[in-house]
Amino acid sequence: MDKITIAHGNGGKETQQLLQRYLFSKLPEELKRTPGGVGIDYPDDGALVSNLVISTDSHTVNPYFFPGGSIGKLAVSGTLNDVIMMGGRPTAILDSIIVSEGFPLPSLDKIIDDMISVLREYKIPLIGGDFKVIPSDSMKGIVINTVGLGISKRPIVDKIRPGDSIIVTGPIGTHGAVIAALQYGIGTSLESDAKPLMKLLDLFEKFDQDIHAARDPTRGGLAATLNEWAQLSGEMIVVEEKKIPVLEEVKSISSMTGIDPLSLASEGVGVIALPSEKENEVLEELNKLGFTPAVIGRVLNPKDIENNSLVILRTLAGGTRILEMPVGDIVPRIC
Amino acid sequence: MDKITIAHGNGGKETQQLLQRYLFSKLPEELKRTPGGVGIDYPDDGALVSNLVISTDSHTVNPYFFPGGSIGKLAVSGTLNDVIMMGGRPTAILDSIIVSEGFPLPSLDKIIDDMISVLREYKIPLIGGDFKVIPSDSMKGIVINTVGLGISKRPIVDKIRPGDSIIVTGPIGTHGAVIAALQYGIGTSLESDAKPLMKLLDLFEKFDQDIHAARDPTRGGLAATLNEWAQLSGEMIVVEEKKIPVLEEVKSISSMTGIDPLSLASEGVGVIALPSEKENEVLEELNKLGFTPAVIGRVLNPKDIENNSLVILRTLAGGTRILEMPVGDIVPRIC
Repeated sequence: MDKITIAHGNGGKETQQLLQRYLFSKLPEELKRTPGGVGIDYPDDGALVSNLVISTDSHTVNPYFFPGGSIGKLAVSGTLNDVIMMGGRPTAILDSIIVSEGFPLPSLDKIIDDMISVLREYKIPLIGGDFKVIPSDSMKGIVINTVGLGISKRPIVDKIRPGDSIIVTGPIGTHGAVIAALQYGIGTSLESDAKPLMKLLDLFEKFDQDIHAARDPTRGGLAATLNEWAQLSGEMIVVEEKKIPVLEEVKSISSMTGIDPLSLASEGVGVIALPSEKENEVLEELNKLGFTPAVIGRVLNPKDIENNSLVILRTLAGGTRILEMPVGDIVPRIC
Repeated sequence: MDKITIAHGNGGKETQQLLQRYLFSKLPEELKRTPGGVGIDYPDDGALVSNLVISTDSHTVNPYFFPGGSIGKLAVSGTLNDVIMMGGRPTAILDSIIVSEGFPLPSLDKIIDDMISVLREYKIPLIGGDFKVIPSDSMKGIVINTVGLGISKRPIVDKIRPGDSIIVTGPIGTHGAVIAALQYGIGTSLESDAKPLMKLLDLFEKFDQDIHAARDPTRGGLAATLNEWAQLSGEMIVVEEKKIPVLEEVKSISSMTGIDPLSLASEGVGVIALPSEKENEVLEELNKLGFTPAVIGRVLNPKDIENNSLVILRTLAGGTRILEMPVGDIVPRIC
């Protein structure tokens, strides 16, 4: 196989393998991070250069307008979330817009309005960017790249530990289900959950010694986030399907398309790992902040089992299976 | 007109007008920069957040391999140059690669090799990024977005002053001419000048009080850079065509295509404004650093003429004309 496939862009196993082979393995160790920082040697939502958090993402969602938002809202929210999930208080955004020749100006107008409306709501300056046009024989649509900068007093560099509880801040897979429904032509009243998770910063600052990991499970969904954590930390995670909140409409889209909700992107949900003795305090605080959190599982204690970087799912039916890193083409252009 | 045209992406007048109308005018002043920083209120190569220089660019060059380089070399060099031209010593790069389904893996391999070879040569870490795949019915090819970070002891925020000399560090328009020749099917032995201008940092540090403006004239060429400087500073610039270095092959491609070399991109040339009394010292230093610099004009003295933000060209034929901000579609996807 010598060509790029849709699966290479799934944010799961194939993406990891491709990047490892064609990019990461070519770089000497000292060029994978700044001295003392966090870089591509430690895949998190963003990078860390002393106390500066920086994140970049290319947004290619199709269609670019969807119930609950647009590529504009998604691009800004998604990048703010990546900064927030590293414990960074966002200070600025840069954007780079690529549109195809013939793209309708009223659509561009609306997309930029959506970007600016998020920036205004959270008072984040847009300090720079780029704008390019591609001839219509090479591209159709719009791509928005965003860069987020933030300052973190205590960065959250994901490292789960035995005994941690895994909490999600709300029902998962909603954004992915909306996009899947549109791509498959399934009617639904569901709206994307895309929004900045700015309120989580208060939680992170209050429990700053206790948050061992935080991620927004976008491309590849909860399955990708938990697998990355297990791999990064060399620990085993056990989650219980019945405790994972999923909206009824998401379940229904999931059963019609055959896509596991655990592989579907969320764009307004956080996954957090913290010592289980702090669980109740954190749940209380999350409820106060307006979230609907749930404890979905635990990182196993070393005495329970030998560490081997796996995610185990206790299924609704009472069985046990390995929750794999997503493979295959799932839903293309979900974000 | 309610659709995007190729001209909207020229980096000249139409790009300025589109961004002003659809983006900049929608943002309140306090969201155009961080407090005390430089942002989209002052269009330069990058933005400034205290002493951090940050720049982002989407690279869409077509074809993605060309004599003298590839989109990989261009993407890294171009972003390093944007950081350098703000007086920043590059500390790290992030990349975001978007490829179409079916893109040849050996080409991706070579493009990433080209990126990494520049990073290795200048010891710049790659600390983060993104990777997306777009179905082949929506895009053909590859787009690379890069983010550059740098630290500047004394940032160069472009502000030309009356009496300044304008210096270019080498012949202009070479990269643009190569891409134009490929797009028009003109045979040439010319190679792109794409390269990081890292050596200019020594000049900027040595003459740190004297560099009033520095820019690499990419999309829109020298004409766009000089017009932006005239607009930003409210000054008039006079340049002499006979003093502007242009390679013979570039002139020949220019005459065959009818594209003014002054509108063609350079990717390895700096334009610098500095007090004319420092001109000789700076020329000497540039020659020592291996450049082939030329003084091409001056910023007029206030006593000479009323300021009105124009660029005047004294032509080879002995006439005088206004050198306009580039308009129309020039060469699409030059960078």
